[in-house]
Amino acid sequence: MTDDRTSPGHGGTLVGVGVGPGDPELLTRRALRVLASADRVVAPTLSPHEVGRAESIVRAAMPQLPVHRVVFDMTPDGEAQRKASHRKAARALLPWLGAGAQVAFVTLGDPNIYSTFSALVTALRELGWRGTTSTVPGITAFQALASQAGTVLLDGAESLSLVTAVDGTATLERALEDPERAIVVYKGGRHLPAIARLLEAHGRLEGAVLGERLGLAGEHVEMIGTSSVGEASYLATVIVPCRRDARATADPEPDERTQ
Amino acid sequence: MTDDRTSPGHGGTLVGVGVGPGDPELLTRRALRVLASADRVVAPTLSPHEVGRAESIVRAAMPQLPVHRVVFDMTPDGEAQRKASHRKAARALLPWLGAGAQVAFVTLGDPNIYSTFSALVTALRELGWRGTTSTVPGITAFQALASQAGTVLLDGAESLSLVTAVDGTATLERALEDPERAIVVYKGGRHLPAIARLLEAHGRLEGAVLGERLGLAGEHVEMIGTSSVGEASYLATVIVPCRRDARATADPEPDERTQ
Repeated sequence: MTDDRTSPGHGGTLVGVGVGPGDPELLTRRALRVLASADRVVAPTLSPHEVGRAESIVRAAMPQLPVHRVVFDMTPDGEAQRKASHRKAARALLPWLGAGAQVAFVTLGDPNIYSTFSALVTALRELGWRGTTSTVPGITAFQALASQAGTVLLDGAESLSLVTAVDGTATLERALEDPERAIVVYKGGRHLPAIARLLEAHGRLEGAVLGERLGLAGEHVEMIGTSSVGEASYLATVIVPCRRDARATADPEPDERTQ
Repeated sequence: MTDDRTSPGHGGTLVGVGVGPGDPELLTRRALRVLASADRVVAPTLSPHEVGRAESIVRAAMPQLPVHRVVFDMTPDGEAQRKASHRKAARALLPWLGAGAQVAFVTLGDPNIYSTFSALVTALRELGWRGTTSTVPGITAFQALASQAGTVLLDGAESLSLVTAVDGTATLERALEDPERAIVVYKGGRHLPAIARLLEAHGRLEGAVLGERLGLAGEHVEMIGTSSVGEASYLATVIVPCRRDARATADPEPDERTQ
């Protein structure tokens, strides 16, 4: 490869395509069209010989489509290592982009919500690439989990906090201060026992549900209780509905009786 | 119609199908399959002679599909009126459900996020219906707006607050207390000038963007400034990214130079 800092190229288009959390049926029509028309489809993976989750979704939906792998270091610790792997992935895409190709980068869930796509774009910009980028939204894991668990995530004037537990449970604790706020916790697998204890202490276990590998082999959906919960995988999703009991009691709906 | 309180029927299936915010390309494959196989497709509308937004999305994607309208009172004020219209819509569905039909109810965005679907299910349960329900997730307006505006909504360990301004700006004010939290405001059209002033007072105008009727005729996307913003429609969406400036300065990324 030539020195890509001196000739990164101005051309090419990079599209971040959200492929949803796992079930290939949750791909949108736009995602299917963009993937079918791209010059290259690229998927992140932990190692060159491993099919990543985003790739497995694309393979299930479009078995004939060639998918190129780029290795990403997804470890939650080690900022330096992660950045180096983004830079390396960006370098791998530069020859295609520099030749004017449309490259589709597939990503779990939505490309603008906790996605490696933004890190990849940042790395490309740092290398001097000046082509255009765009994104195709995708169904998130918390939407798929709400659907599967039969959870009404938000109603009326309720609020939602979407937090990560990647650095521990401090952000979740702040969100729990307001009982009228629903909460989604991403990347909380390692801290699941602590999360369950926190929810119990705040009276928020009712309706709380955990989901892993939604729509993929090894899918796991479970109501959260303090006794049953061990650790879960890094990408586990937790939904904590807001407390609707108090409000339901306070609202006798007298208007209903006049119907 | 017979008295549906005495014989509401146990059968039938009601599926809430999220059709996304406007662009028919944002429908998922599952939504298309469920709509095509349903015995009845039902869409909410403000009046029997008006094509609602959810219906217009379905018509654009599947022009041959018959869509039945049920009238919903969507006015933000008037709890009693709204409940009465939910009850009336539920009564309209009972004969089909009671006969064992699979009824697909289409809804803007996602059926578990601020959707009329949950109110419809509640009204059906109050009428004694004991059939089964399920949902198909859909792309939300804030995801479509983030994609269109080129906004990275969440990165790393950032948090998001999703709030409504249906009752004013108090909930938004609480969310603004944390500068590291991105914010999405739904249903804030009537309060847009007040929202813009609040964002300016908190130094959060940078990157703040407004979207209306995304993917439909009359679409409007605009960066928010205090001078430019008048009122917007009821269903307007506002995205306020979290402040990344401080963090970027504090992080010189020394590891990058060793590559």
